[in-house]
Amino acid sequence: MPCPLPGRDHSAQARPTTADALFSPQVRESFPALAEAGEVYLDSAATTQKPRAVIETVRKYHASATANAARGTYPWATALTQQIAAVRAHTARFVGAAHSDEIVFTGGATAALNAVALCWGLTALRDGDEILYSPRDHAANVHPWYLLRDTLARFGRRIDLVPYRVTETGAADLTDIVAKAGPRTRLLTVTHLHHVFGSATVLDDIRSLLPEQVLLCYDCSQSGGHIPVEVTALAADFAVFAAHKMFAAPGTGILYCHRRVHPELRPFLPGGTTDVRFTATGIEPGGMPGLLEGGTPNIPGILALGTALELLESYGMSAVAAHNTALTHRLLAGLREIGGVDFLPGPAYGGPDTGHGIVSFTLDGISAADLGFVLAEYGFLVRTGAHCVPGGAAGDAVRVSTQIYTGTDDIDRFTDRVRALAEEIS
Amino acid sequence: MPCPLPGRDHSAQARPTTADALFSPQVRESFPALAEAGEVYLDSAATTQKPRAVIETVRKYHASATANAARGTYPWATALTQQIAAVRAHTARFVGAAHSDEIVFTGGATAALNAVALCWGLTALRDGDEILYSPRDHAANVHPWYLLRDTLARFGRRIDLVPYRVTETGAADLTDIVAKAGPRTRLLTVTHLHHVFGSATVLDDIRSLLPEQVLLCYDCSQSGGHIPVEVTALAADFAVFAAHKMFAAPGTGILYCHRRVHPELRPFLPGGTTDVRFTATGIEPGGMPGLLEGGTPNIPGILALGTALELLESYGMSAVAAHNTALTHRLLAGLREIGGVDFLPGPAYGGPDTGHGIVSFTLDGISAADLGFVLAEYGFLVRTGAHCVPGGAAGDAVRVSTQIYTGTDDIDRFTDRVRALAEEIS
Repeated sequence: MPCPLPGRDHSAQARPTTADALFSPQVRESFPALAEAGEVYLDSAATTQKPRAVIETVRKYHASATANAARGTYPWATALTQQIAAVRAHTARFVGAAHSDEIVFTGGATAALNAVALCWGLTALRDGDEILYSPRDHAANVHPWYLLRDTLARFGRRIDLVPYRVTETGAADLTDIVAKAGPRTRLLTVTHLHHVFGSATVLDDIRSLLPEQVLLCYDCSQSGGHIPVEVTALAADFAVFAAHKMFAAPGTGILYCHRRVHPELRPFLPGGTTDVRFTATGIEPGGMPGLLEGGTPNIPGILALGTALELLESYGMSAVAAHNTALTHRLLAGLREIGGVDFLPGPAYGGPDTGHGIVSFTLDGISAADLGFVLAEYGFLVRTGAHCVPGGAAGDAVRVSTQIYTGTDDIDRFTDRVRALAEEIS
Repeated sequence: MPCPLPGRDHSAQARPTTADALFSPQVRESFPALAEAGEVYLDSAATTQKPRAVIETVRKYHASATANAARGTYPWATALTQQIAAVRAHTARFVGAAHSDEIVFTGGATAALNAVALCWGLTALRDGDEILYSPRDHAANVHPWYLLRDTLARFGRRIDLVPYRVTETGAADLTDIVAKAGPRTRLLTVTHLHHVFGSATVLDDIRSLLPEQVLLCYDCSQSGGHIPVEVTALAADFAVFAAHKMFAAPGTGILYCHRRVHPELRPFLPGGTTDVRFTATGIEPGGMPGLLEGGTPNIPGILALGTALELLESYGMSAVAAHNTALTHRLLAGLREIGGVDFLPGPAYGGPDTGHGIVSFTLDGISAADLGFVLAEYGFLVRTGAHCVPGGAAGDAVRVSTQIYTGTDDIDRFTDRVRALAEEIS
């Protein structure tokens, strides 16, 4: 599956030959769960480890002047309201949004993708409209569209979910997308950095080849903490992020909605503080982001995100990306020397610019699940199985994923261990 | 507005004459934000303060063996999966659910009420069906039904939202409910303990007077941490709770769904780990609670809830209820002596068994907002305004809300301050 159309790599940077040159031992030591453990954590794509500063932000919220936000008028409460506004503005800058009101906080990236389906798709889509998607994406970028289709069908409205292919490198097949996009395509949803294949997809180079009415939705759950993301440069209408994969805490997601889609949005899980007025005849939507937020926010989670963004900026997203790319190629080089190793689509089939800290592979003679168990016994914590891809469409494999606290020594010890196991099996 | 039908008070207990007899100074000292503050926190209905043990649970998750749950097969991950299952079972016991699979974790109580609208109402309701609700409830128990009505209307399906009245004590008017429930009533939603009026509503005594098909939904956001709650005794089909109002953290809610409604449910914000299979022709729902959960859960929030439940049990819910009732009556007695104080519906108009730690009042000659500002300057942190009731239907008032760390000294100092302000104004 060739990819004849250029996919620009936002993370392409001059990079050092070894990853350890970038991050000092002090960086690793700032992650207490790793500092105390003998294990090698290679599952950062599931969730990143938490730096001490983030942990302290959460503790401080709970332990000092604890209050709700956006409600009370006393200083404990108003200070939190201001802090959340500051994190929102910071998030906008970090992801390259033009305006703070384009940033919505949700309970997670999954909730954020569902918000696109519920707040936009449920009423914006007409009979015969189409959504272009990849069945090999994470369930969070598949199930919301399936559920939407089923819901609409119950009201006699038929939409089509049109699948597109992925290339050998695991990226979305841009040629296939352009071929399948038509006058009824309303949404094209892609994964910016695939959680199993580890490959990046950007659409800005084909934006002009797509019908104008097509909205672009990016699942940036993996890219958010791994490579620089600029939603405006990506020509995104929607983009979602998972804070817990960006060194912050589970329970907080980011939904980016470009201002041009705001007039088409309806409330998301409305409650107290939702900016909306319901009348006898319908809805009078208020401003964003309040239209899509309701109820007590995950205050410690949002504050944790603020601290995580500060840390990511202090690391430098280009340095983070370069580090993970260097580790990826060291890992690929090590695994390639081992007989019986087979790679899923991904950076194994790409050039030196591909590879962002995620590699998935299988080993002849042992199931991925068994291999994962054995590796865990040796202290290597990797992910195995279908990786939340519906129907196992991405294949069963061992996934290794890295972050700034991963060192070349970790990678070398890991490949040594896989080599030893391969020799035992063969 | 009389309330001729008996409303059994689940929290009715033999209670001591003073609240301080119940909780020792050590209890207050276990809440670090209070221990270090000069302020008197009287906004527990917005969010409770966080005990040290809860803070430590959250810290430990982030700082030791941090992983995702329900995914990885290595010990860090599987231990978390087991801990979440344990908290679910504990939650079921705590709220009086018969089965663990009736407990769904959501991003909050607001999300949980919206889940009832989306996962049940959106496809279960037929043209002409009715929902009985109170327009004076919290927006979280009003907006989801308004949005549902609007969504259905866009597909040509008309449902009616039938408002019922509240009594002088602020409870749901059971006579009005019985009079308005009819053959097309599908859902009756009530607030178990009203967040402004502080009055309890239970429906078990009128259950036999309601048409059989009516499902009962309780918003237990305030009752969960204040009085014993037994969802089975309440005859609840749905019930929601806010963990952050039960000494745990923001970002976690509980949705109780009785097993009898499980066959009518569709997925909620589906993603990775959601127990569902989508086919070309529709949905094959999996088991509960996985059908209504998807994506990375708020792991620290759920673990925090587990610790909070242990603490609530160690305090004893009857003791918590008795403490707050004693404080309520002390507060009422103090405020009644002050000229110009006027009470919103609530325990001021009820007997000694009413009153659960929430009192709302106004003072002649000063707006509630201004009174709140002045009180904050003196270190009394109360809530003012419309209290998230749509259109301000509950009235503008100062709300005082208490918890186990509130002492009679706090109440006395507060009433002394209000008295002094009243004398200045008059």
